[in-house]
Amino acid sequence: MGAPGAFEPGEYAARLGRAQAAMATAGIGALLLTTEAEIRYFTGFLTRFWESPSRPWYLVVPATGAPVAVIPEIGAPLMARTGLADIRTWAAPDPADDGTALLAGALRDVVGAGRVGVPMGPETHLRMPLADFERLKARSGLRFGDDAGIVAGLRAIKSEAEIARIRDACAVAGRAFARVPEIAAPGVPLERVFRDFQRLLLEEGADWVPYLAGGAGPQGYADVISPAGPRRLAAGDVMMLDTGAMRGGYFCDFDRNFAIGTVSDAARRAHARLIAACEAGLVLARPGTRACEVFEAMAAVTGARAGRLGHGLGMQLTEGLSLCAGDETVLAPGMVITLEPWVTLGRGTGLVHEENIVIRDGAPEVLSPWGAPGL
Amino acid sequence: MGAPGAFEPGEYAARLGRAQAAMATAGIGALLLTTEAEIRYFTGFLTRFWESPSRPWYLVVPATGAPVAVIPEIGAPLMARTGLADIRTWAAPDPADDGTALLAGALRDVVGAGRVGVPMGPETHLRMPLADFERLKARSGLRFGDDAGIVAGLRAIKSEAEIARIRDACAVAGRAFARVPEIAAPGVPLERVFRDFQRLLLEEGADWVPYLAGGAGPQGYADVISPAGPRRLAAGDVMMLDTGAMRGGYFCDFDRNFAIGTVSDAARRAHARLIAACEAGLVLARPGTRACEVFEAMAAVTGARAGRLGHGLGMQLTEGLSLCAGDETVLAPGMVITLEPWVTLGRGTGLVHEENIVIRDGAPEVLSPWGAPGL
Repeated sequence: MGAPGAFEPGEYAARLGRAQAAMATAGIGALLLTTEAEIRYFTGFLTRFWESPSRPWYLVVPATGAPVAVIPEIGAPLMARTGLADIRTWAAPDPADDGTALLAGALRDVVGAGRVGVPMGPETHLRMPLADFERLKARSGLRFGDDAGIVAGLRAIKSEAEIARIRDACAVAGRAFARVPEIAAPGVPLERVFRDFQRLLLEEGADWVPYLAGGAGPQGYADVISPAGPRRLAAGDVMMLDTGAMRGGYFCDFDRNFAIGTVSDAARRAHARLIAACEAGLVLARPGTRACEVFEAMAAVTGARAGRLGHGLGMQLTEGLSLCAGDETVLAPGMVITLEPWVTLGRGTGLVHEENIVIRDGAPEVLSPWGAPGL
Repeated sequence: MGAPGAFEPGEYAARLGRAQAAMATAGIGALLLTTEAEIRYFTGFLTRFWESPSRPWYLVVPATGAPVAVIPEIGAPLMARTGLADIRTWAAPDPADDGTALLAGALRDVVGAGRVGVPMGPETHLRMPLADFERLKARSGLRFGDDAGIVAGLRAIKSEAEIARIRDACAVAGRAFARVPEIAAPGVPLERVFRDFQRLLLEEGADWVPYLAGGAGPQGYADVISPAGPRRLAAGDVMMLDTGAMRGGYFCDFDRNFAIGTVSDAARRAHARLIAACEAGLVLARPGTRACEVFEAMAAVTGARAGRLGHGLGMQLTEGLSLCAGDETVLAPGMVITLEPWVTLGRGTGLVHEENIVIRDGAPEVLSPWGAPGL
């Protein structure tokens, strides 16, 4: 019996092999990983228990051989199902020492030459108390440094197994978006629409719904991150729902706009411009193109001078590259990204539209049901 | 128009006043906060956008005066609705400098004497890239140290407004648990029960469902953190669902066990022992009692020798004290905690039961519908 939601063992063996090859080049004796996505990437350990901040979790990826899990004992049965052999546990939370001695020992066991590589670049954080990290450094006597971007680099290129999960998640959200007319109408409070839309996502196959944002108004909405309030939808509103639904441990991330009654011609034109901007991005989204070039093509359609018009996607709602002016990342086959242009419509308000695609040799594969349903 | 889900302004003024009094005692010139719960605690800034790891967010709490937000510009409209006056933004993510220069300036503006206090004790993490933190320290020229546990200490004691939110969340889950017979029966895959139970929580008023775990088997389950698999429920199973549902930004966290068909007498006895253990904890849960004493009273009923039989609860699924052997925290009025005993039933399996209470002068107030529905 494998761990719930885990891939075939070959997937993890391939990831480990690629990591270890890169570690050898970078002079890294072991990777120290502390976050949900990092640890799941190398093990398949999938649990919502990360919602609890009380316990740190550690994975040590050595330069050769299999990873070592140093984890709270509450996680041992589930971690054992991933097939990992070396699982070291302590009775967390332990106010006297919350695993740092055990972790220091595990690192000393596997680090020969080289430094301990810790992800510390953009988007990363260290999911352990800072005081414990200082304790670990002192206790282990090892040299700590960055991971040379190895983990982020590996995660940026998705395998076919990963792409299949994201495709599934997109299909779930596509079916739920198609059912929005069941739940949205003039007079319905936006917060009720939010609850009902999460219900639709679950009914259509989402494992859970980590993310939902949106807004509504005759000239769009002021931002794309607000939770819903009690305001009732009114005829003439453009309502937007943006979801990251989870399926098999992978996200979709796209939104749709809906006309509540009849919306203004200006809103329809703005929406058409968003679709045109996505089309412009789609044409350029090929191997060898830089992220900033896709941004520029989309911005030329919307008139944007700055901002982020898309991003990578996978085990996290957003990860990896940004479609923005300063991002020189070169697109490569297997990258899953969003196209997410914004157009201003009112005073401090506007519309956003988002699609999910995967970079392929040649034309990209579209994962979200392109443009549908339209405004 | 205030920020969605925010409390009255007086709530935040009181929190700030208490923090600044403690900062003066500890010699802290400003607090640097980076996580969702820490920043929301002082501002009411509530968004699910934290699901995206791409951008860091900062709040500076000075020794005197109002907090300063240093945040990505995408969050400015929502942060402005909290009433915060000093909001400094940058176009994140910026590969050249993701806000560290702006943050260093904000800290230098407000830190007179004293250190910059960063939460770094148990359960905390620094939600910013470690490389950026090093950059910030070098760039600001300021002295950084711990926050003397001030933020955790404040958050441990809930106001009546906070308790009301947790009470609401518990009522939502209580109504959803009462409807579980609608969705669970022999032959139904556990993963479908999980989807349907999240739907019930939404229908009963949850804003979203950050946490659900559970298990099922004739002798219980191996752990309390696993996601659901495709196994179908069978007559004789004890099925457990454990949820952290969110309402107004606050969690409930309790579970219930359900008999699928007729369960064994041993399972019924085990469940009765769990309830008895909770009763033993409830009797002791008074101001002045230490967390470890509550643990010992419950452990005496279940036969536990170690483990964690409950924990604090609030803006996070778990926060603050642990009911475990080593935790000397003294209970005080306003602390919201869970009672969560485990009994072993099979080989590596058992049952868990959980209730939520708030410490009051005198007897605690029970927030979850105590014991109902029973096994």
